[in-house]
Parts: sequence; structure tokens; C-alpha cells
Amino acid sequence: MTAEGEGTNPPVAGANVPEGEGSNETEAPTTSSPPVKQTKCVLLTGFGGPKYLRVQLKDQRTVGKGEIAVEVEACGVGFQDLMMRQGLLDFLSKPPFVMGSECCGKVAEVGEGVTKFKVGDEVIVLCDNGAWTEHLVVRAIPEDPSESGTEHMEGPGNAAPLALVLHKPTSVSANQAAAFLMSYLPAYLLLHNVACVRSGDIVLVHSAGGGVGTAIGQLAKLIPDVKLIGTASTTKHENLHQFYSQLIGSTQDYVAEVKKEHPNGVTVVLDSRSGEDTNKSLGLLQPLGRYIVYGNSSFVTGERKNLFNFAKSWIQMDRINPLKLLEENKCLGGFSLKQMLFRQHHTSVVFEAWKALQQLLVEGKIEPIVDSEWSFEEAKEALHKLQDRKNFGKVVISPKLKPKEPEQEKKAEESAPTGTKRASDSAGAATTTSATTS
Amino acid sequence: MTAEGEGTNPPVAGANVPEGEGSNETEAPTTSSPPVKQTKCVLLTGFGGPKYLRVQLKDQRTVGKGEIAVEVEACGVGFQDLMMRQGLLDFLSKPPFVMGSECCGKVAEVGEGVTKFKVGDEVIVLCDNGAWTEHLVVRAIPEDPSESGTEHMEGPGNAAPLALVLHKPTSVSANQAAAFLMSYLPAYLLLHNVACVRSGDIVLVHSAGGGVGTAIGQLAKLIPDVKLIGTASTTKHENLHQFYSQLIGSTQDYVAEVKKEHPNGVTVVLDSRSGEDTNKSLGLLQPLGRYIVYGNSSFVTGERKNLFNFAKSWIQMDRINPLKLLEENKCLGGFSLKQMLFRQHHTSVVFEAWKALQQLLVEGKIEPIVDSEWSFEEAKEALHKLQDRKNFGKVVISPKLKPKEPEQEKKAEESAPTGTKRASDSAGAATTTSATTS
Repeated sequence: MTAEGEGTNPPVAGANVPEGEGSNETEAPTTSSPPVKQTKCVLLTGFGGPKYLRVQLKDQRTVGKGEIAVEVEACGVGFQDLMMRQGLLDFLSKPPFVMGSECCGKVAEVGEGVTKFKVGDEVIVLCDNGAWTEHLVVRAIPEDPSESGTEHMEGPGNAAPLALVLHKPTSVSANQAAAFLMSYLPAYLLLHNVACVRSGDIVLVHSAGGGVGTAIGQLAKLIPDVKLIGTASTTKHENLHQFYSQLIGSTQDYVAEVKKEHPNGVTVVLDSRSGEDTNKSLGLLQPLGRYIVYGNSSFVTGERKNLFNFAKSWIQMDRINPLKLLEENKCLGGFSLKQMLFRQHHTSVVFEAWKALQQLLVEGKIEPIVDSEWSFEEAKEALHKLQDRKNFGKVVISPKLKPKEPEQEKKAEESAPTGTKRASDSAGAATTTSATTS
Repeated sequence: MTAEGEGTNPPVAGANVPEGEGSNETEAPTTSSPPVKQTKCVLLTGFGGPKYLRVQLKDQRTVGKGEIAVEVEACGVGFQDLMMRQGLLDFLSKPPFVMGSECCGKVAEVGEGVTKFKVGDEVIVLCDNGAWTEHLVVRAIPEDPSESGTEHMEGPGNAAPLALVLHKPTSVSANQAAAFLMSYLPAYLLLHNVACVRSGDIVLVHSAGGGVGTAIGQLAKLIPDVKLIGTASTTKHENLHQFYSQLIGSTQDYVAEVKKEHPNGVTVVLDSRSGEDTNKSLGLLQPLGRYIVYGNSSFVTGERKNLFNFAKSWIQMDRINPLKLLEENKCLGGFSLKQMLFRQHHTSVVFEAWKALQQLLVEGKIEPIVDSEWSFEEAKEALHKLQDRKNFGKVVISPKLKPKEPEQEKKAEESAPTGTKRASDSAGAATTTSATTS
């Protein structure tokens, strides 16, 4: 958790703001205009290690036409946030920007023309980034795309970013809701729309103990006669046995272990890592099998962006000749929820999945698993827990929480389901008083 | 249809038997043993042009334990047969061997232990090759794989080859049945098991007028709200409009034509050609789209095997990085029925598909389309019709037919649905009297 050696990773020009100093954009409220409210958020000041995460105050954005403001209660933390911090995702804005893809909160204000939401509604939000804030202003993606057409997707130059905004079901807590969309939507779409998992399928899931892995576990149990095999740290196996019929340690040779119980291989592989060579997973598939890549967590090799390792992983990934797939009767596919929502604007299938998931929540057939809850100031520690693969289910951060005192911290450690050890220098980034306009 | 220039294509060593000469294996019946019955078949004597196809007499195989003999009525001719003749498929035996993958006939004899079939049963057969014969001896793939396990798949060294043997539904003619399996099984499995076509899908089918293309047309109509787009010679468009909502000429730019009606692209591409660069078809897919290659007919560039063109096509096919599929939310897959049945022994899914297809036949919901019927001696002309993409539906050859007289031929031409022009030197290969033991 220390920043040693990070000096070798040059900060992005103009993006890194030394702690405690305001950015050039800082604008002190003048006496002539009403005072601008300040909002606490977790800012990324440059791509790299934990020191580029900073809790900071920003001017609150006003709500424009078709926009809503959400007073945030809790935010989901995912592996994608770790990759975002390290600059390993495509289509990232230039820092500084507010981190985070999902949160839960109450509608605080609605702009002109908003009819679907009213002040006081509890909502859950999935956005491209910017979710780790006290006060979030977004435009909701319309459920019926004909409602507003492309111009809604584009929006005027100063429009708030698009986000998936949904009413929070009453049966889930704010923490559960904050970490729901980035786990259950991918899990549902992977099973039903991408890999088309059916009765009789044998499904291998990598990183079974994470947010998506546990969601896949719960959702796949609802399809009759599906066998789930998971890879996960052995410390998580006990908790995972309720969903997975076979569990393989993260450091074991999963091909050999799968073949012990299933000599003919599996029918589906769901791979959030992309690291192992593709031919290894393709070789494990039965005829008509589907291998789906939905993440590249294996590209995260340390705390900082390592361009050399990244490039090596990319280059070394097997390219596949379609005729090999023809000869072997196999399918190779990829899935990225955020690409689909925010770059491809392919949204109807997401609303359909949400309807199905809502129903399952109401019926109590799925139960989001929250690993632990942290303050904004502890975002670094929260991410570190993911990086160490110590989480079981989802990690949540909240602007309403204060950083734990050493005493509390010790208790939290004891009660944490996977016995996480948090760094002792948990002070993290101090909340700075500098403000930037958004 | 002439063999000019074929001298440049060296015959496979030891495989080419000059017409009218018996092979070394020829064994004249001796007076001491009962006379061995002779069976007419279409033999491939070497990989290359039409001259390597020969109608010949072979000794009839006797029926061993677990085997059945079928008196063949009609045989299906497919694009794979053209590729087999040219040696463009993997896993081909060394010529000479009997051509053909499917036929229809009556069970003439059953070996010890056969309970599923009895003499007189009308059956349809799909085999790896060897179907173009008067008298076919095979072992039926068991419906329940536990019935006989792997040793059934392997069989003793002199065992008859494995084949899918099914009872012919009474509602279809012998010609329809002979050409049913290699069209409707791939079409069904592609739609339901590989591409998982659902309501709302927009499906682009290449070579829509062929056997599989017309079968896909009929089967996709049974899935509500599926839009079918086909590419086919313009002469076939009139007949295809009953199944396909948009038809594109074979020589048109299909990407541009599809985009005219569907600016966002399609959800599924079913490609029997493999020739166009893969990125072109992937680029036409909507997010969550599936591009399935199930043939490589574009590799057939002339009457003879052209290794240079073949290698060029193979090398030029785009290799795909799985991370590209992740970024674009797309799937790439392959399907080969014969690979699955005869190399991978993955059979249960085929019997399931057959059950569904039988039901559809009984209900009159599908109606196999036969393009034309030819004698064994006209096998060259039958294949030539496929190569010229002149067929609408399936081409059939029969050991029961005599080659057409010039008079008949003219009439057949006039009544042929797509106005096929048959070569005037239709004498084809004369039936030789030499015999080879199998």
C-alpha cells in the first residue's frame, strides 16, 4: 500500500495535482453569486498506483434539462476500477476524473422533463465513471430508445453523462444495491444472452469468489441441471460450495483438475481474466462449447500500470483462425457491459435483464453478497483487497462513513468473512479542501 | 465439364486407376466359393476434376455383427462432395473410395444383435463417405451412447463404418429423405444450438438457395419474429422470397445492401463460404451478435483442387484476437456436422435435433426441396450444377436411374426450376465392369 518506486511511473502531464493544492480550475465562490455547494468525491489524478487516488471536494453540478441529481449512499468497487486506476481500460478520459461505475442513493433533484423519477426515489446507478461522489448528476438512459433517439445519447456539450438509472428494489439494502448492477447484469447476460447456458451444461467460471462469480453461482442454480465449476482462492471454497459443485484453487492446474471430474471437458468457460492462453480454454471445451472472455483481470500484475506486461499479455494472446473453430465445433466470444451501454448504446437487452433480475430479487431467489464496507478515504484499501483477491462478493465504499479508527479496524478485520488484513497505515488520502469545478 | 488441363494436376500415387482397368485389388470370383454379388457405386479414383469420378462395380460387403445392409434408392449430393472430390476436406481417406454422405433406402439385411432395424424398414443414412452405392453396409450410431460405449465407436478393424441411421418418415419421398440430413440437421443445429437464434434476431445467410439455405429458411420461419436476409443468385430470388425478407445477389456488395435496410447491422451471420474476410462479417454484427462459419465453399475455385488458392484463402483468413471480441461484444463460432458425428463422436445433440425435425415433418411444417434427380453416371453433371450454384434445394442421384437420353435431357432442362444447362457431353463415365473388393 505504499507508493515506493512510483516515481518511475511518470504522472500524466498536467493531470497530477499535488495533494493539498488546488488545481488551476479552482474557482473560489464570489460574493455576487450564491455559494456553490461542495461535494466529496474520489478523484483519480493520474494513472498508476494508489497515490493517484484522492478524496477531494468539487463544486456541485447543477441539474439541467432531463437530468437528475442523486445523493449517494454507497458505491460499488470492482476489478474494473482497479484497471481504470492503472489506465488499463480503453476509452478512459484524461485524469483528473471521478472514479467509480456504480452507486445507490436517493434522488435529490430532477431537471425539466424528467418523469420517470421524482425527488426521494431510491435509485441504483451504473455509469461509465464518476460514481464515487456524494452528489451525482446524470441523464438516465431511456428504456424506450425511440423516446429520445440518438440526440439523447449524444446530448449537448455540457450535458451530464448518461447512466443506467433504476429504482432500487425495497428488498435489498443500499450496500447490496450499490454493488448489484456490475455483478448481476454481466452474470445474467453472460448466462442467458451470450453463452446461452442450458440444462445439461457444465460451466467453468474463473474468479468464482468475486462479485460476478458469486452472482453467476446464484443465477446458474436457477437453470435446472447446470454443473458449475469455479476457480478461486482456497480460503473462499467453503463459502462457494453452496453454488459450485467443483472448486479449484487459484494456483492449481485447472485443466488437469477439470479433466479429473469431467474427462470430456466442459460446455462453457466464462473467463474474466483473459490471461491464460486462449487455446488452453478452447481445448477444454466439448464440441458445441462456448468460451467467453468478459474481462482481463490478469493484465493487472502489480499496483501500477506496467505497460510492458500489458503489451506482452496482449501480444501473446492466441489469435484464432475461424477455420479452427469450424473443425472443432467451438465458439469464442467476448462480453463487456460498459462497452455495450456507453460506447455501443445497445441498451434494450439490459432493461430486459433488469426486469428478470428484479423479479428474482422480489422472490428472494438471489441475494447480493457484500464483502465489506469502507469510507471514501479507504478507497485505496478497498481496491487493494480486490487486487489481492481477498474479497468474497462485492466491496463497497460510502461517502457517509468515516475512516475506521485503529480499534474499529481491528474488529472489522476479525469479523471480515475472508480474514482480510488491512494495511496499518489506513489513513489513506486525507480529504483535501481544494475544490475543482466539474 | 471437360478434363482439359488436368494433366497438370498429378494423380495421387497408386490411387488413379485408368478407366476400364481393374485395380491390383481386383479379385475374380473363383468357382469354389459362391459367386460374390456386385454392387454399382460412384468411386473417387483420385483428388481433382470430374474425370476422377467413376461408376464401377464392387464386391458386395457381407453383413457382420451389429451391422445392417441398405438397398439404396436415392443419394444426396452436397457441396461437401465437391470439396471431397477436390481433396479440400481434412480427414479424407486415400482414394480410391466410394463418395457420398447421405442416402435413403430399404434395410436388406441385419447382422447379429441389431434390434432397432429389421429387413424392409425404410431408412435414411448419413455417413462419413461411401453413400453413393446400390448396397450400403454400415453400423448404426447408437442413440444411447451407454449402449455400447467407446468400443462401438472404434469397432473391430474390419467393421463396417459408423453411420447415423434413422427411420424414414412416411410423409417424405425417397428423394426428399435422401437429401434431408445434410441440410436440415445443420440448419436446425445452427439455429438452435450454435447461434441460438431467438425472437427479434436478424439473420444473414450466405448461399440461401442451397440445401442448408432453404432448410434454414423453413426452420427460421418457425421462430417468431426472426428476419432472414439471404445472398443467392438472382435467378433464385423469386423462389426464396417465401422464406427470406431481403435477398441480395451473389455478386452484390452484401455489406452495403444489408446496411441499406438494417443500418445497425444484423445479430447473426451464418456463413457456408468462409471466403470473405472475417472482419467484414464481424463488422456487420450488432453487439451480442454471433458469426458462425459452417463451411468453406469459397475455397472451391475451379473444377480441380488448386492448392495455391486453397493455401492463400487459409492464410488470408483473419485471425481474431479474443480481446477484440470482448471490446466489440461479439462471438465467432464454427460448426461441422460430420466432424462432430464421425471425429468427435458427439451424437446426443443430433438425435435430439432429429426428434424435433421428425415432428416438424409429421406436422407438415417443413418440406424438403429437391432440385433435380440424376443417375449415378451423371454424378459429374450433378456436382457441376452445385459448383455453378445453379441448384435450388438439393440435388439427388440414384442407382435406379439410367442416364438421360438427349431427348429426355432437353425436357428435364425445360422443367428444371432454375433453368440449368447441362453439358452436352452428358455421357459421363461409362459403367465399367472392373470390380474391386472393399
